[in-house]
Amino acid sequence: MVYINKLAEHVGQEVTLKGWLYNKRSSGKLQFLMLRDGTGLVQCVVFKGNVSDEIFESAKKLTQESSVEITGTVKKDERQVGGHEIDVKELTVISIAEEYPITPKEHGIEFLIDHRHLWLRSRKQWAIMRIRHRIVKAIRDFFDDRGFVLFDPPIITPNACEGTSTLFETPYFDLGTAYLTQSGQLYAEAGAMALSKVYTFGPTFRAEKSKTRRHLTEFWMVEPEMAFYNLDDNMDLAEEFVEYIVQTILAERKEELEILERDTTNLEKVKRPFPRVSYTDAVEILKKKNHAFEWGNDFGGADETVISEEFDRPVMIHRYPSEVKAFYMKRDPQNDKVALAVDMIAPEGYGEIIGGSQREDDLNKLLERIKEHNLPQTFFEWYLDLRRYGSVPHSGFGLGLERTVSWICGLDHLREAIPFPRMIYRNTP
Amino acid sequence: MVYINKLAEHVGQEVTLKGWLYNKRSSGKLQFLMLRDGTGLVQCVVFKGNVSDEIFESAKKLTQESSVEITGTVKKDERQVGGHEIDVKELTVISIAEEYPITPKEHGIEFLIDHRHLWLRSRKQWAIMRIRHRIVKAIRDFFDDRGFVLFDPPIITPNACEGTSTLFETPYFDLGTAYLTQSGQLYAEAGAMALSKVYTFGPTFRAEKSKTRRHLTEFWMVEPEMAFYNLDDNMDLAEEFVEYIVQTILAERKEELEILERDTTNLEKVKRPFPRVSYTDAVEILKKKNHAFEWGNDFGGADETVISEEFDRPVMIHRYPSEVKAFYMKRDPQNDKVALAVDMIAPEGYGEIIGGSQREDDLNKLLERIKEHNLPQTFFEWYLDLRRYGSVPHSGFGLGLERTVSWICGLDHLREAIPFPRMIYRNTP
Repeated sequence: MVYINKLAEHVGQEVTLKGWLYNKRSSGKLQFLMLRDGTGLVQCVVFKGNVSDEIFESAKKLTQESSVEITGTVKKDERQVGGHEIDVKELTVISIAEEYPITPKEHGIEFLIDHRHLWLRSRKQWAIMRIRHRIVKAIRDFFDDRGFVLFDPPIITPNACEGTSTLFETPYFDLGTAYLTQSGQLYAEAGAMALSKVYTFGPTFRAEKSKTRRHLTEFWMVEPEMAFYNLDDNMDLAEEFVEYIVQTILAERKEELEILERDTTNLEKVKRPFPRVSYTDAVEILKKKNHAFEWGNDFGGADETVISEEFDRPVMIHRYPSEVKAFYMKRDPQNDKVALAVDMIAPEGYGEIIGGSQREDDLNKLLERIKEHNLPQTFFEWYLDLRRYGSVPHSGFGLGLERTVSWICGLDHLREAIPFPRMIYRNTP
Repeated sequence: MVYINKLAEHVGQEVTLKGWLYNKRSSGKLQFLMLRDGTGLVQCVVFKGNVSDEIFESAKKLTQESSVEITGTVKKDERQVGGHEIDVKELTVISIAEEYPITPKEHGIEFLIDHRHLWLRSRKQWAIMRIRHRIVKAIRDFFDDRGFVLFDPPIITPNACEGTSTLFETPYFDLGTAYLTQSGQLYAEAGAMALSKVYTFGPTFRAEKSKTRRHLTEFWMVEPEMAFYNLDDNMDLAEEFVEYIVQTILAERKEELEILERDTTNLEKVKRPFPRVSYTDAVEILKKKNHAFEWGNDFGGADETVISEEFDRPVMIHRYPSEVKAFYMKRDPQNDKVALAVDMIAPEGYGEIIGGSQREDDLNKLLERIKEHNLPQTFFEWYLDLRRYGSVPHSGFGLGLERTVSWICGLDHLREAIPFPRMIYRNTP
């Protein structure tokens, strides 16, 4: 058995393919079967003169998505999808599909997500999943090649990581209510103190009642955390990281980006250095553009888009008002009003893809912050231990996988960036 | 700044290291500081004649786990840990640690897990985490290099995957109760029909009240699923996979295995082909050894150990009684009483590390099974669609990450195989 994406190695040879009928057309003595096998598409030509009557009739009976085994000769043909064509000699039906619900006509988005298990077979969804995989691999390769150690944080946690968002709850035996993690960061900090540079990469959860196209209740996040890194080191790493991801996909997933009809002009510009502007300067940008905004507030999606339009590549906004940022972020020693935080905003309106900071490494200041934020100190004792026993300057950030997939693929909504999306009104199929 | 695991590139040079005091001893004019930086250990020698009085005094004040920046010359010295030593010239204290709770004396396991965030800094835990990372990378490389597509299944699911184990529950907005996944397999099957060969790799959850050393409530599982694979293909892949993981770790994590004092004699034997015995023959092995067991029951940990002792490498037991296996497993066309299932049992008493099967691809038989198992058909309609629309023979298996880490590292209990273990009586820190 040969896979369609390996046909180039078999030109002129007889091969056996196994797959599904993607679509077909016929004209008299010829039937053109478009076969998909999960690795690609190829046109298989059934010519009445070349096959038995029985095979010609079987081919006629194939419905969309029927499974089939086809043997034939590989011909190079640049005009065809994938650059090859199969001259069919043998054809065995594996299973005739019932009438397939997804047809070339337009379907509503709810219908398609209801049939997500089948929709994934469509060419565009196939391309997105292959790009998603390659992004994940680029992320892991990036950190693995730079001496980071993977550090899987727990999903079930006894308390809120940041104490801010709404969390999913689960009863945990005799220990009361536990929560699904919204970030592995605090645990990653413990990891960095043990292993120097670590990254977490797993699912995270937010039970926010956000219905926007930028929100999923379940999404994957990668979070590097580095001992002895300050905010500048953190930004250097973040821009190298995002450049690496984007350039890798441009080089390795050309075919898939073409299927998605992604205009890659802007992606090609994603090269270091990225612009770095302070929050205060970003507010000035908004004011210059007559976009109403007051210093001290957090940026919303619309604000981010306006700021990002000033630049031709991702922009890093740093030093946010401490008030709008999490308790664990270190304040700027030069200006107590701002935290050593950084957000990276993707171009083309895709919003925040990275959020990070240098962490507060002073035990007493961290204790103060916990009190100010009305967080239960007892839950954070283990985290405070990281400052009691050999505290060091350290930093890290988180990148949302689905937002990155969505940006690189040019998708309108995060729901297509993950195999089975979870939103506030959907947890099926 | 230079990392300790790169010192070989800097012999004779002056370098700056940043890290934590692992331990120290002194004798008159000499202080020997063992420094750890997360990448390794190195002895730093502070000689009174080489440094200012101030530096010599600072070094004296360093407590275990205090953080420090040290500048000095790298000397090659094979007798020392890591093969190098540092002649200290400068030393700056970053932070003096409070009295460290984990000392070289013996601690109870509960004490250590209570301090897991610090225990991870110990040499053995450090080695386990680095081996865990390398196993994860080996797993991903194995599948990536063989044309598999990563396919992340949902964690929050509307129903029980196998309908057997106890699940963690979570209220899901207006949609009622949702559950934490215990396996991504059913979703992976949808993925395989779209992408041919896929693998899932993520956290899974079991709320079983098992208190054994082989159980965690939260653990990572990798699950490949392949269209057009039968049980034999599945076993071929499983043995190639496990051989690859073990041989990669032997080659790439020698130092860490030495730290763990792992006798690698048995690991070196993990080479294909692995023995394959039918369940029925395995029962005969038990009987021959006068180990009481009746055909038709499932093997327990003790049974598995007795069987595995017959072999010098992992053993694959196939064709289990259909009664003890999940509803989705295909029955042997030659013998309806057994399912085309396979479990792989690790040597040295480490138990089942892989469970897999060929899947039932016949719609009507699958419908029957769902009825027999009293499962709600409505929840499985999407899964049944995979048989309605182009059903094909397909197979897959799951490998438990922590059991694999535990086996390769030679650990007594799964709790040390994951950064922050979750058990029925523990969800902290």
